[in-house]
Amino acid sequence: MRATVLHGAGDVRVDDVPDPRITAPTDAIVRVTAACICGTDLHPYGNMNPAEQPVRIGHEFMGTVEEIGSQVTTIKRGDLVVAPFVYSDGTCEFCQMGLQTSCDHGGFWGAQGVDGGQGEAVRVPWADGTLVTLPRTEDPRLIQSLLTLSDVMGTGHHAATTAGVRRGDTVTVIGDGAVGLLSVLAARRLGADRIILMGRHGSRTSLGQEFGATDVVAERGEQGIEQVRDLTAGQGTRVVIDAVGFMSAYEQAIGVVRAGGVISRVGLPQYEQAPLGVPTWFHNVTITGGIAPTRAYIDELLPEVLDGTIEPGKVFDRTVGLDGIPDGYRAMAQREALKVLVTP
Amino acid sequence: MRATVLHGAGDVRVDDVPDPRITAPTDAIVRVTAACICGTDLHPYGNMNPAEQPVRIGHEFMGTVEEIGSQVTTIKRGDLVVAPFVYSDGTCEFCQMGLQTSCDHGGFWGAQGVDGGQGEAVRVPWADGTLVTLPRTEDPRLIQSLLTLSDVMGTGHHAATTAGVRRGDTVTVIGDGAVGLLSVLAARRLGADRIILMGRHGSRTSLGQEFGATDVVAERGEQGIEQVRDLTAGQGTRVVIDAVGFMSAYEQAIGVVRAGGVISRVGLPQYEQAPLGVPTWFHNVTITGGIAPTRAYIDELLPEVLDGTIEPGKVFDRTVGLDGIPDGYRAMAQREALKVLVTP
Repeated sequence: MRATVLHGAGDVRVDDVPDPRITAPTDAIVRVTAACICGTDLHPYGNMNPAEQPVRIGHEFMGTVEEIGSQVTTIKRGDLVVAPFVYSDGTCEFCQMGLQTSCDHGGFWGAQGVDGGQGEAVRVPWADGTLVTLPRTEDPRLIQSLLTLSDVMGTGHHAATTAGVRRGDTVTVIGDGAVGLLSVLAARRLGADRIILMGRHGSRTSLGQEFGATDVVAERGEQGIEQVRDLTAGQGTRVVIDAVGFMSAYEQAIGVVRAGGVISRVGLPQYEQAPLGVPTWFHNVTITGGIAPTRAYIDELLPEVLDGTIEPGKVFDRTVGLDGIPDGYRAMAQREALKVLVTP
Repeated sequence: MRATVLHGAGDVRVDDVPDPRITAPTDAIVRVTAACICGTDLHPYGNMNPAEQPVRIGHEFMGTVEEIGSQVTTIKRGDLVVAPFVYSDGTCEFCQMGLQTSCDHGGFWGAQGVDGGQGEAVRVPWADGTLVTLPRTEDPRLIQSLLTLSDVMGTGHHAATTAGVRRGDTVTVIGDGAVGLLSVLAARRLGADRIILMGRHGSRTSLGQEFGATDVVAERGEQGIEQVRDLTAGQGTRVVIDAVGFMSAYEQAIGVVRAGGVISRVGLPQYEQAPLGVPTWFHNVTITGGIAPTRAYIDELLPEVLDGTIEPGKVFDRTVGLDGIPDGYRAMAQREALKVLVTP
């Protein structure tokens, strides 16, 4: 089959690779009908170490179950399924508590002999624990929204949930990528009144306003912090969501969080150390969030996607076939596209 | 009057200072009947910058109200009162939300013209917001427990509360000082089942066991981490309380916290930067806690102190008069004494 392989920084290709086969009785083979490119994919795409071997890539996909192993019981051949961006056994203590990203037997797509999501098909380990069956649909808008349950919608929800967003809350969201915009949607959904979106791409922040942002701050750094403080009587907001991961975003978060507030980080940190001394302690700032166990949130979010209450799929602004994937990476890296849908 | 003045590192004296006077209509003058020395006092005692001027010190006290300003309404002359370790106006937004340490008009004892607590008397700003009236008592054990509401009991409670300790929880407490031991008590009070106390002073950890610690780990660093992991099937505990503040304690906390768990920091951080990169993010570790708004907790804890359900005053193991204060500092710094009571 054909699947996406990252060969080096800026060099992503669609190569011929071995067809997936059931290797454990808990596996399933899924024929991918929709996948996408993630902001996280841009990190290795931008910075892959030249010493590394080519790697399979892609971690968001949905598709049709083609084959199941002998121990798979809840997933059937022919099911339309969505896969969260990590696989998980569904039975260990961490899966039971809704932290599937820490699953005892879990792992990432595109690593350790497991296919990446940006290809024609995927061998899915722990199919019962990993996959969620969806109602069949041909509606392209609905398919796009369902696909966001794999990662970006669930990640925005994780940000808002771990921050404990509640009715009447004030929230700053740092970053106008897909996760930032869906963090806005998630915070609004949980009842936040005031949502300040920090981002400087007009077309993206407009979508953020459609999702519920009440204010947009385009400035960054000290100027951005000052703007948010001005908007909040000098105090900052109770919740700050860092949907970026760079140190500059963390510093911005520290600058705009209210005393007693919460910073929820869902952007992959691009730093090892961060300011965490007397100032954060003195202001009783909580740092929470982390990699999102999106599998845990699909049941809660799915009904609202199906009935159109939320339309997270609006983050997709470009569609490519398999051959268009290299150009899709380029477009996302150059910020021409917000999020690229792949229809193999 | 006589009051404690820190003149330099290791040089604490009881000096003659001006008698306190009402300077604002919201002030009260409190004649101190019991005060104490805090682990936090040992930081300037150990490291005071030689370039600094002498400073008044002490931030935990109770006593009798001698005089009140014209706008004080809830505190009366003759009341026995306890003061939290910061003063606060009781009316601003932060005070209303129970974060009196961020009060718009609050501040620390012993600074900016306000008396320290280790002296004969104190001018208390914002007496209505700051002080809490207690039932009169001559019972020395009860007085000791009441005095802990000023800081160490409330700080332990803040650690356990911000960490969200709940029935059946597993908790590691790092540090066997008064705050560590009272964090054990607070975690037990909130229903924790398993409380691992990391400390290496036998007499202190024994008191920790009396307060509810189920396990004691005397080892530190990697060995200590390994021991806690061994005690918890390799996983660590859901909650970790850092009652120390050194980087070594933070690293220990990171090492023993379970995926999806919470580190609550109530020890004053002795660092500016800390590890907060991919590992904490990947394990969904929350960092919370901070300086404790003990004023917010007195109403909740007071009944249990009064009826003897909790006896936090057991942390006091030495009593000195004013003249004994320099020796009290020395004894605490050399770990001869756990916590020193001062009866002026």
